[in-house]
Amino acid sequence: MKKKVSGERFTITYRLSGNEADALAAAKDICIEQTVEFPEELVSDSFIRENIFGRIESFNADRGGWFNASVSFAVETSAFEFTQFLNVIFGNISLKPGIIISDISLPLSLAEKFPGPRFGVKGLRDILKVYNRPLIASAIKPMGMSTSQFAGLAAQFARGGIDIIKDDHGLSDQPFSRFRERVQACAISVLDANSKSGGRTLYFPNITAPTHEITERAFYAKENGAGGVLVSPAITGFDVMRQLAADESLGLPVMSHPAFIGPYLSGASGFTHGAMLGKLMRMAGADIVVYPNFGGRFSFTKDECADIVSECRSKFGRAKSIFPSPGGGMNFSNIPEMTSFYGEDVIYLMGGGLFRRSSDLAANCRELLQLVRGKT
Amino acid sequence: MKKKVSGERFTITYRLSGNEADALAAAKDICIEQTVEFPEELVSDSFIRENIFGRIESFNADRGGWFNASVSFAVETSAFEFTQFLNVIFGNISLKPGIIISDISLPLSLAEKFPGPRFGVKGLRDILKVYNRPLIASAIKPMGMSTSQFAGLAAQFARGGIDIIKDDHGLSDQPFSRFRERVQACAISVLDANSKSGGRTLYFPNITAPTHEITERAFYAKENGAGGVLVSPAITGFDVMRQLAADESLGLPVMSHPAFIGPYLSGASGFTHGAMLGKLMRMAGADIVVYPNFGGRFSFTKDECADIVSECRSKFGRAKSIFPSPGGGMNFSNIPEMTSFYGEDVIYLMGGGLFRRSSDLAANCRELLQLVRGKT
Repeated sequence: MKKKVSGERFTITYRLSGNEADALAAAKDICIEQTVEFPEELVSDSFIRENIFGRIESFNADRGGWFNASVSFAVETSAFEFTQFLNVIFGNISLKPGIIISDISLPLSLAEKFPGPRFGVKGLRDILKVYNRPLIASAIKPMGMSTSQFAGLAAQFARGGIDIIKDDHGLSDQPFSRFRERVQACAISVLDANSKSGGRTLYFPNITAPTHEITERAFYAKENGAGGVLVSPAITGFDVMRQLAADESLGLPVMSHPAFIGPYLSGASGFTHGAMLGKLMRMAGADIVVYPNFGGRFSFTKDECADIVSECRSKFGRAKSIFPSPGGGMNFSNIPEMTSFYGEDVIYLMGGGLFRRSSDLAANCRELLQLVRGKT
Repeated sequence: MKKKVSGERFTITYRLSGNEADALAAAKDICIEQTVEFPEELVSDSFIRENIFGRIESFNADRGGWFNASVSFAVETSAFEFTQFLNVIFGNISLKPGIIISDISLPLSLAEKFPGPRFGVKGLRDILKVYNRPLIASAIKPMGMSTSQFAGLAAQFARGGIDIIKDDHGLSDQPFSRFRERVQACAISVLDANSKSGGRTLYFPNITAPTHEITERAFYAKENGAGGVLVSPAITGFDVMRQLAADESLGLPVMSHPAFIGPYLSGASGFTHGAMLGKLMRMAGADIVVYPNFGGRFSFTKDECADIVSECRSKFGRAKSIFPSPGGGMNFSNIPEMTSFYGEDVIYLMGGGLFRRSSDLAANCRELLQLVRGKT
């Protein structure tokens, strides 16, 4: 059988540290290390040299003393698997310092194989029937509460008209509130409040779980009336999230949580904020991407958040635009500033700030809704 | 129902950057952020304050201007799930810079829930019937070869008496050599060579794959005569590897590959080399942990490698000792130095160095075997 390739290639842009010679050497290294992982001089097969080796498409100086190299790879190297795609773009070279992925560009065949989120901004708005304003979300917490306490919180949030209630990402199947019991009770609370108010609040349980239980928990959530699922892909594996989004019989919006993902964003090695929390999360099927907002208790800068937002909305293969969901220190006083920064297509995730406002959680939600409608 | 906890706690040691006040504040933050993730002053429930909050067990200055804090958590916060365990130890605080996990200590209940590798050093030696010398391993590569070429390489390795042949971690299910076809052909090659030579060479196919195919590929490998499996847990999710190791009906040794794991080891945020590639990999079921050796084409230092080795062998719950498997630049001339550094319980993973030695791959393996037996 004569080996051949389609000629379609995907292109990854790497930011490289060091002087120009070092950076160029790193770019050449990526071409070899990420494909054949073999001494170049020992590869005599011209098919492999011409088609399997990565190819430097461009190389130039970037700001801050870094360099940019765009490297393309034959789509066939990815085997059209998201896992192997991650391996080609950042497998071994993740172990070398000073290499940061800043962009991902897909040809048609890969864009079709990884269509991204099922719902995106428009799909989620159509479920909620909420247009022309930011959405608001909060979490039931803290861990250690009982199921009936969580169901009570969910009822108050829903009565207040919040758009999305998620499990705290640390709630899984602890003895204080078992997963199944909690999902059932909270979903009933929310559906109940919706039917009284005519609202459409959605409940997203956390289905981050041991591998063999994730799908089961996702379907349990759906069957019990959940409106979406929360998953931490750096913990479960990114392909787990992609699989959930791709599962037509599940058909629920997916919210990604950044737990355990921090080192990829440290600036020493990894991804830019936009490439990881915008593009890669979209490829992996997230409809909503949670991240810590600038100015809160985490360290993301305003520019890094702008990068995420830009990549949630950029043209990217066939992938729908998704919702950035800044959290980690949102409060009532910073909403006006945030709305001028984020525009309408954003989901504010407010935890402590919403609880702190007053002891009437439903009233706090109503006040926040007025604020995001620009009516206060 | 009165809520209660067992009193058993697991303890994580964090290295913290900054001055003493900053580091102490970070330790206190970990206690809250990793458990309730809620403003402390809003938590009035004394059960939660006393049992769910993390607890600083010790705090002291470390070398290099860092501080060490040991923080304990109730075992119940982990829900006895490896995924939620990862979330408690490093979920949200992974997003804050300057926090590095340097040790993990488990009480009996968690040690029993996460028993670690099925085989370990002794189990793998009993399969191979090889004692009192380092083991040697290599990989079939490069990507782009055909299945019959890979099977030919596997035959040569096995004829040379190598202990373990693994797929290159970049071989998955590319059109040049499909997974099933390759596994079958290479396993037959190896079994054939073994039956002629009386050897016991094991073949470890790479089963890093889309989520829903991993188990299937693992069993396909087993049914076709593979002697173990290779998995990249930072790509699949760590719990996938744990599940493979725990699966009694599979019952194959597991080799972990470090693809995509680099940022966790960058020193900016993450884990020490020993905590990640020793302890966490053991908890997650690896019998063999592959990593780039010092002095090769990657950047791990000798001290970092010593740390890995130490944690592959340390007393750790019920977990068996496992094999460190240094690769990424091993060659004939550095074996004596390596053997004085690593001792006997190590698996040298030699790729390019073995191919480069001469055009007779089987002879190169035999020469390497003589070298690790200390007979040259």
